[in-house]
Amino acid sequence: MIPMWMSELSSRSGVPVATVKFYLRERLLPPGEAVGATRARYGEAHVRRLRLVRALVETAGMGLEQVRRVLAAMEAETDLALAIGSAHLELSPAPHDAPSDHSRARVAALLAGGEWVNEPHGRHATALASALDALDAAGQPLADEVLATYARAVRAPAEADLAHLVADDPTLDREAATTYAVLGTVLTDPVLLTLRRMAHEDLARRRLPGSS
Amino acid sequence: MIPMWMSELSSRSGVPVATVKFYLRERLLPPGEAVGATRARYGEAHVRRLRLVRALVETAGMGLEQVRRVLAAMEAETDLALAIGSAHLELSPAPHDAPSDHSRARVAALLAGGEWVNEPHGRHATALASALDALDAAGQPLADEVLATYARAVRAPAEADLAHLVADDPTLDREAATTYAVLGTVLTDPVLLTLRRMAHEDLARRRLPGSS
Repeated sequence: MIPMWMSELSSRSGVPVATVKFYLRERLLPPGEAVGATRARYGEAHVRRLRLVRALVETAGMGLEQVRRVLAAMEAETDLALAIGSAHLELSPAPHDAPSDHSRARVAALLAGGEWVNEPHGRHATALASALDALDAAGQPLADEVLATYARAVRAPAEADLAHLVADDPTLDREAATTYAVLGTVLTDPVLLTLRRMAHEDLARRRLPGSS
Repeated sequence: MIPMWMSELSSRSGVPVATVKFYLRERLLPPGEAVGATRARYGEAHVRRLRLVRALVETAGMGLEQVRRVLAAMEAETDLALAIGSAHLELSPAPHDAPSDHSRARVAALLAGGEWVNEPHGRHATALASALDALDAAGQPLADEVLATYARAVRAPAEADLAHLVADDPTLDREAATTYAVLGTVLTDPVLLTLRRMAHEDLARRRLPGSS
C-alpha cells in the first residue's frame, strides 16, 4: 500500500478536502501518519472510511451522532460477523415508542413461521413492529399475506449480498470487510426501493384502468 | 360523513393541533368549512391528507418543498393511475448529476431483459442509474446478477401491493385512492428495508464464521 497525501485521499474518496478536515476534527476519520509538523499521509483504510461516512451522511441521510454510533458498533466487536451485525443494527432507527403487543406478536409469528433465527425482541424486530404500528395508525394495516410476501421477497437479495461479501475477497481484513458490508447495505437500499417503485410503475402501466 | 372539529382531526390523524395549524398556514392541508368567524369543520379527506403529510415528513424524512411536490403531483392528473404514478415519481429524489452512460445502459438492459414497460429515461430509471454510479464510485460495483436478483425480488411485493389497492375498496374516490396508494408506499418502505436487514442478520447468524 502506497500512502497518499490529503489531495489524493479527497479525490479517491470523492469527499472535498474541507470536509475531510472536518471529519478529522470530529474524529470520524482517524489521523494520518504525521510527516513533519503540518502534513500527514493516509492509507486505503482512510479511503474506505471516507466512502462509508459519505454514504451514511449523503445516501442514508444520517446526522453525525448516528454515524458515530455506526462506526463505534463496527469497532466494538472483535468478531467479523458480530461487528457487521452490530453496525447493521445501528442502521435501523431506535424506535421512539415501544411497539404494540399486537405488532410484536405479528413479527414473532412471522419469524417463527419462516424459521428465522433473529432475536424477536432485537432492534430490527422492534423496528419492524413499529413500522406495522404506523400502518395501523394510518388506517392502512398491512395484511398478513402481504407481510409474508415481503419477507419471502428479501431472502434472495440478502443471499446474493452475502455470497458476494464472502466470495469477493477472502483476504480482506476485519476493518475492510466490515466497511465493505455496511457500505454495501447503505448504497444498495436505494437500489431496492427504486426497483420497487419501478415495479409499481410497470404494473400500473399494464393494469390500472385509464393507464397509458 | 360526519364533519369534525380541529381537536378530533388532530386525534384521528395523530398530528398535534399546533402542527395541523402550521400545515393549514402552509397550505399543505386545505381549509375546513368555516363555521362562524373562528371555527371550521373538517372531513375524512382532511384526516387522510394529514396522515399522508405526517408520513412524508416523519417516515420519509421529506422537507416541506418535497411534500408540496408530491401533493401537487397527486392533484395535477385527473386520471387515477397517472396521479398515483406522478406522485410516486416525486418520492424518488431528483438526481443531482446526470448518471453515467454505463449505468444508464445497465438499467436499459435490465428493463429490456425483464420486459418491463417503464420509460428508460424516466425519473425512476435515472435514480436507479445514479444509485449504481454511487456503488461504482465507492469501489463496490453491484454485479449484474445481483441487480437482476433484486429486480426479480420486488415483483411479488409490488403485485401484492397493487392487488390490495385495487381490491380493497372499489368505491374510493380519486383523492382517497391516490392518498391510499402513496401513503401505503411510504409506510411500507421501512417494512421492506427492515426485513432486508433481518434477512442479512438471519443469514449471518447461520453462516458467517465465528457467528453465535
